[in-house]
Amino acid sequence: MNTDLSARIRHPALLDRVTTPAAAAALIKDGMVVGMSGFTKAGDAKAVPVAMAERAATDPFRITLITGASLGHDIDRMLTEAHVLARRMPFQADPTLRKAINRGEVMFIDQHLSETVEHLRSRQLGPIDYAIIEAAAITEDGGIIPTTSIGNSASFAILAQKVIVEINLSQPLGLDGLHDIYIPSKRPTRAPIPLMACDSRVGTRYVQIPPEKIAAIVITNEIDSASTILPADGETDAIAHHLIAFLESEVAQGRLNLTLQPLQAGIGTIANSVLRGLADGPFHHLRLYSEVLQDSAFDLFDAGKLTFASASSITLSAPCAERVFGNFERYKDKLVLRPQEISNHPEIIRRLGIIGINTALEFDIYGNVNSTHVDGTMMMNGIGGSGDFARNASLSIFVTKSLAKDGAISSVVPMVSHVDHTEHDVDILVTEVGLADLRELAPRERARLIIDNCVHPSYRAQLDDYFTRACARGGHTPHLLEEAFSWHIRRKATGSMRV
Amino acid sequence: MNTDLSARIRHPALLDRVTTPAAAAALIKDGMVVGMSGFTKAGDAKAVPVAMAERAATDPFRITLITGASLGHDIDRMLTEAHVLARRMPFQADPTLRKAINRGEVMFIDQHLSETVEHLRSRQLGPIDYAIIEAAAITEDGGIIPTTSIGNSASFAILAQKVIVEINLSQPLGLDGLHDIYIPSKRPTRAPIPLMACDSRVGTRYVQIPPEKIAAIVITNEIDSASTILPADGETDAIAHHLIAFLESEVAQGRLNLTLQPLQAGIGTIANSVLRGLADGPFHHLRLYSEVLQDSAFDLFDAGKLTFASASSITLSAPCAERVFGNFERYKDKLVLRPQEISNHPEIIRRLGIIGINTALEFDIYGNVNSTHVDGTMMMNGIGGSGDFARNASLSIFVTKSLAKDGAISSVVPMVSHVDHTEHDVDILVTEVGLADLRELAPRERARLIIDNCVHPSYRAQLDDYFTRACARGGHTPHLLEEAFSWHIRRKATGSMRV
Repeated sequence: MNTDLSARIRHPALLDRVTTPAAAAALIKDGMVVGMSGFTKAGDAKAVPVAMAERAATDPFRITLITGASLGHDIDRMLTEAHVLARRMPFQADPTLRKAINRGEVMFIDQHLSETVEHLRSRQLGPIDYAIIEAAAITEDGGIIPTTSIGNSASFAILAQKVIVEINLSQPLGLDGLHDIYIPSKRPTRAPIPLMACDSRVGTRYVQIPPEKIAAIVITNEIDSASTILPADGETDAIAHHLIAFLESEVAQGRLNLTLQPLQAGIGTIANSVLRGLADGPFHHLRLYSEVLQDSAFDLFDAGKLTFASASSITLSAPCAERVFGNFERYKDKLVLRPQEISNHPEIIRRLGIIGINTALEFDIYGNVNSTHVDGTMMMNGIGGSGDFARNASLSIFVTKSLAKDGAISSVVPMVSHVDHTEHDVDILVTEVGLADLRELAPRERARLIIDNCVHPSYRAQLDDYFTRACARGGHTPHLLEEAFSWHIRRKATGSMRV
Repeated sequence: MNTDLSARIRHPALLDRVTTPAAAAALIKDGMVVGMSGFTKAGDAKAVPVAMAERAATDPFRITLITGASLGHDIDRMLTEAHVLARRMPFQADPTLRKAINRGEVMFIDQHLSETVEHLRSRQLGPIDYAIIEAAAITEDGGIIPTTSIGNSASFAILAQKVIVEINLSQPLGLDGLHDIYIPSKRPTRAPIPLMACDSRVGTRYVQIPPEKIAAIVITNEIDSASTILPADGETDAIAHHLIAFLESEVAQGRLNLTLQPLQAGIGTIANSVLRGLADGPFHHLRLYSEVLQDSAFDLFDAGKLTFASASSITLSAPCAERVFGNFERYKDKLVLRPQEISNHPEIIRRLGIIGINTALEFDIYGNVNSTHVDGTMMMNGIGGSGDFARNASLSIFVTKSLAKDGAISSVVPMVSHVDHTEHDVDILVTEVGLADLRELAPRERARLIIDNCVHPSYRAQLDDYFTRACARGGHTPHLLEEAFSWHIRRKATGSMRV
């Protein structure tokens, strides 16, 4: 064990900071602001938060918890059940926490993922009392080598009063060199971020902090939670097929070439399947500039379609994780992980001209997208990075299946019950029914195309009827306000949106 | 006249391109895409579009018209009445055109002002057949020196097949040197935009195009339309007062210093009055990085409060225009005009940490803002640059009076009838009643603050009742979908939102 630790904790003076999860958790006091590693379940702290939840059973305390994005290992569930979470940001994806948020018990602040650390840096949020960061190793000079995600960890560690490090022995030392830590300088005299391509390296390979800030080190040995991505199905295949046809047509018209522009795909089953589906197109030498690499990224590598992938985390199914981390040297020089501020930065997304593919919960006849709220009220997960990408992408694509709940719900509605992305930020909508290219169209033209191409045939007449009657009343964006949410209200009353 | 022209048209071979507005207008054919100068009424083409409207009376034709932003001189009215406009983008502010848009006769595409030229450059829009650009002069090598705005003119001229130049003799030659034309390079290999401060100069002082692209030159002598900004009143003074108190408190907490961060203020009476009101605060050495300079900018200069102002246009009242352009050398070295792509660029706005002040038409209890649509249906002007700034500002502030139409309308409603800016992009809301600092708050907390601080007292109980009943039903963002638009519907039925 000691030999292992000297390879993992290379700054000798820090070896005596090694302690138990319970002792580290005892440092966290009521009312503190805690920044924790973890992005789309990857690279999360795995022992200290569990010990925090255990301690709260006998010693109640409440904190503000800020992470990169979602955590694995049921940590959000455990902390919720232990009533530790007073405030939570900027994203979550846990069913138990979601219910507490929707009951108004946990104050959840849903943020664009690129922005959280700006708020910390400008002291609109914080200060952070403790950062709890999973690491593969601590360097000779006390630097932190992250694991399978960076998320907000670098800025948390830099800005926190004190840092607790979880050294995870199950995370391969080969992760060293994967990361590129770049921290933008202070505003208003900030320099341009020099990143000009997916494979640019502009920062350091570890997080530089004074070693004396490390208050405790905990040793863990548990792998990341596996992703629960569903396999592709006929509908996701159809969505991918429509998208490939569209991209081929863009190539035919000379707007793109077969290497496309750098691609982003949001977390989740549909975007993952669609991205994987691109392997069946004529495209080659693709590049990813995304926030999370899912199985699809490695499928594209293995298919010889992908040359480089940049993101803030790697979140894989169990078999894919075995394939990738068991042969990591095969992929490593084609990968870089960045802070989520950089992976999702408007400056970079606009500069690179990214093609962004994100999932909609529902969209409306004018192309407004709801990514977060069921019936405009109940939070699912959060906006995540979808806004960072949709606003700044050269092509902003949203995908969804046209129906949910066995057809009781149409994903295409007269008016979305909550707006996360306005029609200005939505270029292309795709369902298994078809694709609507909304670029440079006025609202009435957008509606025509969405009704004709995207809505499920079983809802088409009903949606067309709404639009026709709204147009008769007039307006740039014709609506019947008294009926705009009638589909949502009907489903609550009758179980189905159908008339 | 000839002496004048050689000072204004310095490339001798171009002197024989001088022609009449009618002859130039005759070059524009049915179905063409035309890019025209003009941003917030400043620097618009003044003769050729009038001749186009006249010609259409006997020779009907329809075009797609793209501008910087709004035009002066009733040009949008004349072109609308002459049925010349098939499609119009990215902004307008003309009552006649607005009506035609709302009748569905003119297809209006409402865009973030920083984005239009990206669409042209990536050929999602266009190509532009003719650019019609007002100029102070044409240089020895055929370059175009713009006048009181740049807007999209530089990219229009560069991307168009042919260019028509309106040399406006009433625009002082002293404008030469005011402009800084920077065109971002092609994606995905674009370089960072090197602009790092309000007073950075990173481009050229005129638009460089091959002189042979200039198909016609027309001589005009008419000044810009004056702005119709209303004077400050008790309510705008109160809004400014609340904002000054807030900014002072930010200084007291060490988040800002008395020079603040670079400021942006949207077009219009309220933002103009609020910006001018900052002269009464303790702030000094202020800088503007905005899209339009209104009277308030020059009031701040004259009050010794402002050190530099960057924008895309200068739009002044008649007396202020006389004061400024009659003493232009007094201001010129403290001013720069940029393409609207640069004045509004997410990369720069985020880098500089701008404080953005924009006007809301209405906002809701969770902080979502409607800037454009009356009753979610009828377009007013367009989103303009408000989204470019609100999304990327370090502090995104929206201001409005709490009531409209003599109290028949509350500007604070249960749910906005159209979303232009989501709650993620709105930090501070101010009415004459008070200010709500929404940063790092969950939706239920935001609602409490907005109801307590911003809504007019005569609507407070009614709004509180909605929120209380919505919370009883639950949710992260509690709403009663069946009542969410009841205030708007009631006003249509009874003339007032009041119960």
